[in-house]
Amino acid sequence: MSLKFFMPTKVCFGRNAVVDNASLLRALGSKALVVTGRRSAKVNGSLRDMEAALQAVDVPYAVYDAISSNPSIKQARDAAGVARSERADLIIGIGGGSPMDAAKAIAVLATNDVDDAGLFSGQFDRPVLPVVAVPTTAGTGSEVTQYSILTNDSIQSKSSIASGAIFPRLALLDPRYLEQLPPDVTANTMVDALSHAVEGYLSVKADSLSSVLARESMSLIGPCLKSLQQQPSPATRERLLYASMLAGMVIAQTGTTAVHAMGYSLTYFKDVDHGKANGLLMYEFLRFLDAHHEGRVADLLRYLGLASLSELKDCLQGLLSTELKLTSGEVELYSSIAIRTGNIKNTPVPLTQGDLSDMFTRSFAVAAQVSRR
Amino acid sequence: MSLKFFMPTKVCFGRNAVVDNASLLRALGSKALVVTGRRSAKVNGSLRDMEAALQAVDVPYAVYDAISSNPSIKQARDAAGVARSERADLIIGIGGGSPMDAAKAIAVLATNDVDDAGLFSGQFDRPVLPVVAVPTTAGTGSEVTQYSILTNDSIQSKSSIASGAIFPRLALLDPRYLEQLPPDVTANTMVDALSHAVEGYLSVKADSLSSVLARESMSLIGPCLKSLQQQPSPATRERLLYASMLAGMVIAQTGTTAVHAMGYSLTYFKDVDHGKANGLLMYEFLRFLDAHHEGRVADLLRYLGLASLSELKDCLQGLLSTELKLTSGEVELYSSIAIRTGNIKNTPVPLTQGDLSDMFTRSFAVAAQVSRR
Repeated sequence: MSLKFFMPTKVCFGRNAVVDNASLLRALGSKALVVTGRRSAKVNGSLRDMEAALQAVDVPYAVYDAISSNPSIKQARDAAGVARSERADLIIGIGGGSPMDAAKAIAVLATNDVDDAGLFSGQFDRPVLPVVAVPTTAGTGSEVTQYSILTNDSIQSKSSIASGAIFPRLALLDPRYLEQLPPDVTANTMVDALSHAVEGYLSVKADSLSSVLARESMSLIGPCLKSLQQQPSPATRERLLYASMLAGMVIAQTGTTAVHAMGYSLTYFKDVDHGKANGLLMYEFLRFLDAHHEGRVADLLRYLGLASLSELKDCLQGLLSTELKLTSGEVELYSSIAIRTGNIKNTPVPLTQGDLSDMFTRSFAVAAQVSRR
Repeated sequence: MSLKFFMPTKVCFGRNAVVDNASLLRALGSKALVVTGRRSAKVNGSLRDMEAALQAVDVPYAVYDAISSNPSIKQARDAAGVARSERADLIIGIGGGSPMDAAKAIAVLATNDVDDAGLFSGQFDRPVLPVVAVPTTAGTGSEVTQYSILTNDSIQSKSSIASGAIFPRLALLDPRYLEQLPPDVTANTMVDALSHAVEGYLSVKADSLSSVLARESMSLIGPCLKSLQQQPSPATRERLLYASMLAGMVIAQTGTTAVHAMGYSLTYFKDVDHGKANGLLMYEFLRFLDAHHEGRVADLLRYLGLASLSELKDCLQGLLSTELKLTSGEVELYSSIAIRTGNIKNTPVPLTQGDLSDMFTRSFAVAAQVSRR
């Protein structure tokens, strides 16, 4: 038995977690930059709570509310400039994965004058600012990971910072922020959490402890695959937020696998939501592993409470709809990008680029390619 | 649902964990004080491995090898003086709970000039030195907790430092160090780990995540309760070391309960081994909770794979033998000490001093008290 575990984030989960733990913010910094997207943090009450908490403990703050989905390196650099000019010593990310991941990169760039290669090296000369993460979706798990995923135009995909230095120091999870999420966001983010639990369970880096957490996460998400309501009950939202956090703890140990590697292309080139992209590829990935005698696929179906891979396929099709078709040229491009990622190495069966092409092709009926001569 | 989780220790578990992770030691300090007991770390190879690891990464070190069982405050202060005179900036505790707990206190006292009240306050003005923990028994879980338990003569019991500042920065667990443990040490320490998992599962501070870990720990220890060999196989040793670490992660979240509170008196006044003391009290504690409709007792028996509390009693009697009898005066004294501890508040049923006296009396046939007039 060999095992590694590292997840130093302090987690506080429950109604009113932000305001109730204001004193912990005080201990982390004297001037905060709050990083959010344009809209949701204002609508769901999370930004208001954070402002109240910071005011309660006399921590001045500025708000940077321009983080987009799949934030770019440039955006993180821009916000880091604001952090420096505001003399912030604490970065607070509120939102889905995008603001939380951006907050981590901003925390690096605020104190480290590095080029892109230096940023993604994960080795930083100067101490990274402390990060506080407040998730407002149940999907990414970024609140408990050492990953920051940024859109990287130079490789036409996403790149990850993976560094123990960017684990959030504090994660504050309040399920109330999820109550008004639109159905498609609920479904897509739940499938993202599912893909973390599933890929983490199958990863070559999985060990006894990460698997305990992955099983617990799958057993909570499984029932929702079959019967997710358009507007889930608060109890279901809470369970999914907990399950997504567990799945984040899992991938903090195991990394992700080919599903994420392939999904990034669908997001980069076709603007498919990240969780949805993973979900659209998951069935063919699992079918491939199952055909290669990867026994853990049967295990994970059991923890999900599903009878077969076909049932999982039906569930995913019910949750995620797509009209997407890929050309054979696109399949070749995306496979060639995915095969070069680090995630691929975590897959428990060795993969060729051809295997990835097959998974893309089977997942998306391939459109006739118009050839111009 | 409300949940808290904090366990920032980096865990590396497996054969050769100390030497294989030498580079992590280098990152934590430039001069180490290695803290052990008089003998076992030399016999089981752990001290030799640590010296090799420190030499491999050019970290000079001194060895303080005089930690006794149930170390006193005075002993920690003495060793802290050595840490200061050696200018150590890293404290490495190797052994059972005693050297690891002592290492944490030494790490505080090396940099903080505080009296006993200040030590046990858990609030320290100056940064505590980083601690590395190498367990050589499968029991205490101290390698992943924020607790340091010291014998405190001024209250005739043990006192705890509980502070996030003393979580080990690194825990290196190699099951080979356990291979030559004598049968009584194996049994007593396994019962200590059991008491952590059981008390943590029942604690009022238990939550969804701590309970996942407690259930896993109990499901690993349970089979050994019935069939622990005099010399367990390496695979069993490994499983128990993992289970004890999980149980440590549990009590880092939940604290312990009345069993630990009561057990401290048996250790202080009667020199009963710590794990054994807990084990001798566990049945009556669980019987009391069960009688008070604490439904989780039935749950935990299920996770242990036991049919009834009587079966647990038989298992514990098979593992732990005692001739100890208490006088009614001793019962009164011990109960009066236990009722004042913080652990008592974690018990899920409110307890009176009389309840504790009953548990002591039922656990130890009370001897006739000689009265002198």
